[in-house]
Amino acid sequence: MARRRQIYEGKAKILYEGPEPGTIIQYFKDDATAFNAQKKGQIAGKGVLNNRISEHIFTNLAAIGVPTHFMRRLNMREQLVRQVEIVPIEVVVRNVAAGTLTKRLGIEEGTQLPRTIIEYYYKDDALGDPLIADEHIACFGWASQEEMNDIADMAIRVNDFMSGMFAAIGIRLVDFKLEFGRIWENDYSRVILADEISPDSCRLWDIKSNKKLDKDRFRQDLGEEAEAYQEVARRLGLLNGESEGEEGAVLDFDSAKKKRDGQ
Amino acid sequence: MARRRQIYEGKAKILYEGPEPGTIIQYFKDDATAFNAQKKGQIAGKGVLNNRISEHIFTNLAAIGVPTHFMRRLNMREQLVRQVEIVPIEVVVRNVAAGTLTKRLGIEEGTQLPRTIIEYYYKDDALGDPLIADEHIACFGWASQEEMNDIADMAIRVNDFMSGMFAAIGIRLVDFKLEFGRIWENDYSRVILADEISPDSCRLWDIKSNKKLDKDRFRQDLGEEAEAYQEVARRLGLLNGESEGEEGAVLDFDSAKKKRDGQ
Repeated sequence: MARRRQIYEGKAKILYEGPEPGTIIQYFKDDATAFNAQKKGQIAGKGVLNNRISEHIFTNLAAIGVPTHFMRRLNMREQLVRQVEIVPIEVVVRNVAAGTLTKRLGIEEGTQLPRTIIEYYYKDDALGDPLIADEHIACFGWASQEEMNDIADMAIRVNDFMSGMFAAIGIRLVDFKLEFGRIWENDYSRVILADEISPDSCRLWDIKSNKKLDKDRFRQDLGEEAEAYQEVARRLGLLNGESEGEEGAVLDFDSAKKKRDGQ
Repeated sequence: MARRRQIYEGKAKILYEGPEPGTIIQYFKDDATAFNAQKKGQIAGKGVLNNRISEHIFTNLAAIGVPTHFMRRLNMREQLVRQVEIVPIEVVVRNVAAGTLTKRLGIEEGTQLPRTIIEYYYKDDALGDPLIADEHIACFGWASQEEMNDIADMAIRVNDFMSGMFAAIGIRLVDFKLEFGRIWENDYSRVILADEISPDSCRLWDIKSNKKLDKDRFRQDLGEEAEAYQEVARRLGLLNGESEGEEGAVLDFDSAKKKRDGQ
């Protein structure tokens, strides 16, 4: 494969220039970080699983009409996506109290919220991704009001779809984080879903046992991180074989290989 | 005077049962606190000045049609107000970057904001009054959507009025905090402006020198706290004599005495 230009290395992914203009390759690492990267580690096979889980969810969201940056999975750790200008806002959708909400507002973890909350955080590691309100977004021009309306509408649709999808496999969708990006078509820009959706960006609890099947296992030193990610992929029907070559890989990625080999 | 029942002692005020049902006496202390009461001190005469400044502002706001809890000043440190159910939200209006905004969002102090920001904080000392968004208010029922609309409308009107009032006396209204309370009339409730407006709750900078004329002098150990509060009262035309009896008192409170004496 020809040498590719690295555009950006984040905490869990590396972005490379894609094969055509306006495309990007997302490479999923096994690196895990928490608490604004104060805690660092690895979860074996996480990148492979997140690549596959995110592909699955983005493909399904596209099918219900939510526009996303996802184009196709290239191989076990890589997917091709549309290049976007990332909106510097992390969108958090919460159905059940967990994480920072419990600390900030004194709500007990696990409390079913009377209604779904959408929170916005300013994407800035140096500031610790602070919570912001609509007012800050408008004041500093991080996104237009029209974009924020579209983002909120998409966030609710993603929540509805994923709540159903996970409920069907015995998982409670506690909360999740989305990122959106701006694309231009002629002189017109719009926002589409970007980044990834995976157990790195969602809180997923087993409905019966409340066992955490997400990155909180890493954040809270609960152990069995890789097993939790595998369990999510398994329930989603994404683990068809365990014979593939790469260490930690447990996926059937025949279709990706065929695409890569031009079949 | 008959012994009164104390209802509540806060950081800067004490509330007593008022003479008639549905009324409260607000007693203004000289106590000053900052950083969620981690820093404590006194500013000599502050209670007297804040009582008078707050009376002045609330009276003027009532005159332009902003409903407030203020009824009348009783004496140098006390005012009679309507009893309300305090909405547990601190409303902060910002015109210029200062205080927590600069730290949270990395904006330099003194930056004129592209547009006015209204922020909401959940009134809870144990949680450190965390920033909240409309979504949290709606989710936890701290106020109705209608109440929040009324609160935002009033906050903007108060900002417009006070920006003009302070500009006229060479003071820049950087930001300020408001509190609102619910009152019932028959089966109908509405929100009115409550608490106080004073150099304790506003950031006020001299337009020419940028000298701080507010509680930041105490927060930041700048000295001359009492002088700053006096300067604000003086420019507002509230210092007519310095001969009154109480220590730190510099006000003409003849009219209050006359009211009290039934004249």
